Amino acid sequence: MSFTESLRKIQEEQNSLLCIGLDSDPDLLPTHLGKTPESVLEFNNQVIEATKDLVCGYKLNLAFYEALGSEGWKVLESTISSVPATLLVIGDAKRGDIGNTAERYASALLADLKFGAVTVNPYMGYDSIEPFIKYRERGVFLLALTSNQGSKDFQRLKVGQTPFYEKIVVAAKKWNSNNNLGLVVGATHPRELKKIRSMVPTIPLLIPGIGKQGGDLRSVVRYGCDRKGLMAVINVGRSIIYTSRETDFAAAVRKEAMAVRDEIRMYQAEFFGG
Amino acid sequence: MSFTESLRKIQEEQNSLLCIGLDSDPDLLPTHLGKTPESVLEFNNQVIEATKDLVCGYKLNLAFYEALGSEGWKVLESTISSVPATLLVIGDAKRGDIGNTAERYASALLADLKFGAVTVNPYMGYDSIEPFIKYRERGVFLLALTSNQGSKDFQRLKVGQTPFYEKIVVAAKKWNSNNNLGLVVGATHPRELKKIRSMVPTIPLLIPGIGKQGGDLRSVVRYGCDRKGLMAVINVGRSIIYTSRETDFAAAVRKEAMAVRDEIRMYQAEFFGG
Repeated sequence: MSFTESLRKIQEEQNSLLCIGLDSDPDLLPTHLGKTPESVLEFNNQVIEATKDLVCGYKLNLAFYEALGSEGWKVLESTISSVPATLLVIGDAKRGDIGNTAERYASALLADLKFGAVTVNPYMGYDSIEPFIKYRERGVFLLALTSNQGSKDFQRLKVGQTPFYEKIVVAAKKWNSNNNLGLVVGATHPRELKKIRSMVPTIPLLIPGIGKQGGDLRSVVRYGCDRKGLMAVINVGRSIIYTSRETDFAAAVRKEAMAVRDEIRMYQAEFFGG
Repeated sequence: MSFTESLRKIQEEQNSLLCIGLDSDPDLLPTHLGKTPESVLEFNNQVIEATKDLVCGYKLNLAFYEALGSEGWKVLESTISSVPATLLVIGDAKRGDIGNTAERYASALLADLKFGAVTVNPYMGYDSIEPFIKYRERGVFLLALTSNQGSKDFQRLKVGQTPFYEKIVVAAKKWNSNNNLGLVVGATHPRELKKIRSMVPTIPLLIPGIGKQGGDLRSVVRYGCDRKGLMAVINVGRSIIYTSRETDFAAAVRKEAMAVRDEIRMYQAEFFGG
């Protein structure tokens, strides 16, 4: 089954577009857990246990694990193995390097760590992306228009009449022969999200920027989904996982995750029918 | 002392522009060393010991260490600490993420691992770069025009009359208030290297793509250096470190490194005087 097909299946079976970002920062964990790499693992395990029926998957940004030093890689491995195999685990790595080197990253992330999908920075072109695409059943989300302020510095430059990021969208369409390419589009750009979805009606979009970064959930569902109200992977991180620093934080995380999932469902019903 | 000043000092004192790329692949090591993470560390240590008087620094591409799993980070730490403090160690990480996350990468690479410089992918704009620049005495090399085939896919797109990668060059000039920004320009593009050097006459250029990738060393020295024949960090990886797979490989590596260093010196004398 192609990545795109398996993502559709997961989202249908879970009846959820919500992806939780496990960007777990030792300084922001519930106080009783401590601040060690083991604390991060315990935190992740409890968040996963409390939310695994509410989400289509989890996204782990590698920066938070590399910041833990050599222990970080083990925390990453253990966290990935704690997620039920029926869900998606995205390695938000934003790697991009020459072919020979990209092979190493692909092997580390997809063969060894067994992420179900990764994010890739496309700036270095096709030969930097191909080693990831070759893992036919895994997803590869190319950065197109990111959620941050700095996205205006280069991504929006005009190539002729076309914003640069649309060149990435066109390339993703062209290079998608394995049906496993997707795009990262920030929730903070609803108008551009709508345009991008019209250019690629069926491919998966990974959409960060809801919550702390200020993206609007209703617009994201409306413009980010395909015609069946699926294929948007809506990532919410800090505003869910740091809901509480008390010992019963997992219950608070579950409550918040459920609220976001249900809000997404409400908009799905509004725009795509029940 | 700013990064740019300290790089100049290193290159003068070592009388070398050569940087050796320690992209150490367990499958390509001398046979007697084995193929474990410890083998990689032993290999790195012997290469450093055999060449430390011939180079201005070493570049470690993180992909090769992440491919070793959780042991890889330790090999990275140990290798960095084996390099004399008087030399530059570049973490070729090509990271780039939103500010909050880029802070983590910067802290992992510059505060914890203590790289003297890193490579950064600029696609996500200023707020993804700033957390690195803030380490005032460390260098930050932004990818401009990379050495690979895929560099034509996006980097050469025209924004008005200007190739996209020149927008990165202009930005690097503008954002260089700490005097610690540099650019990555592939040796495989001598004409563009010349143009870029004319746009930024003094900032450091990290130049990969010599050797296996086919860049021409004479052009690189001629067009990549500043007016004093310095400030080009010329990286050579595979064609030096994999010279021999025998037990006496270190002597062969030294011989090859010396040949490259001397060839660079010859071109420095030709174009910039003795």
